[in-house]
Amino acid sequence: MDQRPIGVFDSGVGGLTTVRELKRLLPGEDIIYFGDTGRVPYGSRSRETIIKYARQDVAFLRTFDLKAIVIACGTVSTTALDLLREENPIPVLGVVEPAARAAAKATRSGVIGLIGTQATIRSGAYERVISAANPTAKVMAKACPLFVPLVENGRVEPGDIVIETVVKEYLSPLKDAGVDTLVLGCTHYPLLERVIGAFMGPDVTLINAGAEGARATCQTLRQSDALANRAAGVSRYFVSDSTADFSRLAAIFLREDVTGQVQQVEIGAEILNHRLGIRNDTP
Amino acid sequence: MDQRPIGVFDSGVGGLTTVRELKRLLPGEDIIYFGDTGRVPYGSRSRETIIKYARQDVAFLRTFDLKAIVIACGTVSTTALDLLREENPIPVLGVVEPAARAAAKATRSGVIGLIGTQATIRSGAYERVISAANPTAKVMAKACPLFVPLVENGRVEPGDIVIETVVKEYLSPLKDAGVDTLVLGCTHYPLLERVIGAFMGPDVTLINAGAEGARATCQTLRQSDALANRAAGVSRYFVSDSTADFSRLAAIFLREDVTGQVQQVEIGAEILNHRLGIRNDTP
Repeated sequence: MDQRPIGVFDSGVGGLTTVRELKRLLPGEDIIYFGDTGRVPYGSRSRETIIKYARQDVAFLRTFDLKAIVIACGTVSTTALDLLREENPIPVLGVVEPAARAAAKATRSGVIGLIGTQATIRSGAYERVISAANPTAKVMAKACPLFVPLVENGRVEPGDIVIETVVKEYLSPLKDAGVDTLVLGCTHYPLLERVIGAFMGPDVTLINAGAEGARATCQTLRQSDALANRAAGVSRYFVSDSTADFSRLAAIFLREDVTGQVQQVEIGAEILNHRLGIRNDTP
Repeated sequence: MDQRPIGVFDSGVGGLTTVRELKRLLPGEDIIYFGDTGRVPYGSRSRETIIKYARQDVAFLRTFDLKAIVIACGTVSTTALDLLREENPIPVLGVVEPAARAAAKATRSGVIGLIGTQATIRSGAYERVISAANPTAKVMAKACPLFVPLVENGRVEPGDIVIETVVKEYLSPLKDAGVDTLVLGCTHYPLLERVIGAFMGPDVTLINAGAEGARATCQTLRQSDALANRAAGVSRYFVSDSTADFSRLAAIFLREDVTGQVQQVEIGAEILNHRLGIRNDTP
């Protein structure tokens, strides 16, 4: 039993789809969420910048006494997870391994589609895990840079010609290649599940990376006997930009009103590194 | 005569449309450009965060000995210009006043349209200048949050159903209200000039805020006898994320190859404030 909170990190609001699943599976857990809304989006930035920001973000979360950190961000999970694991003495869980394993298991045709941000696709992280789990599987990857801004502007409804045109454009090559399993490799994408599902058709299995990450976290904590022992946990949300904007988007992603549970914090390398003794140089 | 360089600042690449006009008008000037590509976009962030970032960015530019700074960013021009002027002893020029004055002068119907980021529209800065210059003019303002990501993803061509749908959606209320002048209040928007122009029709005058800012800068420097006296100036570009991504977008915005002229720098409040003795607290 471990009553300490679980830390959950995302570059913005997308990670709330993971929080939602975590709360459903483990209602007794306390959660500390940090969304770097002052610097979102990460997915179009360089590897070096993503690593620098991720280190600062995790350093902020570690100012709390956590039992584990979930990187509920596809971009950081694919780009900086190994490094964050090396640098932190508590379990750091991502969304790549669980989602990649689920996809490797789900495919029958052996052709798996992968969509994510530019940084996620560039990293090759999914391909590595999938090919270890299923050496004959083939991965067709496609960066979808417009999905995050479209989701954040509420363009998620079937019938919206803008999102339907962009979905068709990005996903046609995957559909034509005959993928039977599609990994939604960014925690924003579950909000597009209906539009993507309708375009790909009922025979394609969608793998929600954020939800797979939440399920794997649940399993890891259970195996190490680190679940909390209480009826209802408390969630606290921290952001690096205005709390009002976050609360508005949280209502969409979490389907919950978080007003009053959100605080704004200052993320600055120098302050945190001084406090935690962590170096800020990129490798 | 003043041989010192002009500093030009933008949250990312949009300000390059201003640089392009500056170089055309004043080919002899040296230019130091800073684009905060590690934290772009600014337009959807809170006022406090925009002010904090703008101060850090201007502090970086002022590590050079400049004769003036042009805020070639609609969001920062509308949200932080007065403050930046108070805090800096050199001329700080924005895009709002010149564009608002040009619009107030151009309108015949007295109904002026204004488009920009959420922060620009929220600020009310254009309305203030327009109503001072033309008290009977009416301003119809509309935030266009999807324009920046669409432009950065190259969705600028007439015939692209995505950009045409979004343009129609955002601009229909302005068209229906009978605006005869439309201020493109974000330095990304000139790349949409053809699509916007075609939708609004030939009787609507488009005011390019970035180009108006460049023209006003030219005039200010000429009036104070501060133009440089050389045939061809040199431009240097600094960014807070990868130089390769910037060079790729610069080719679109500046229509020039800047490879080799771009350097990446670290923007951190504490380092700069220490060096320059500027306070970082938001008001």
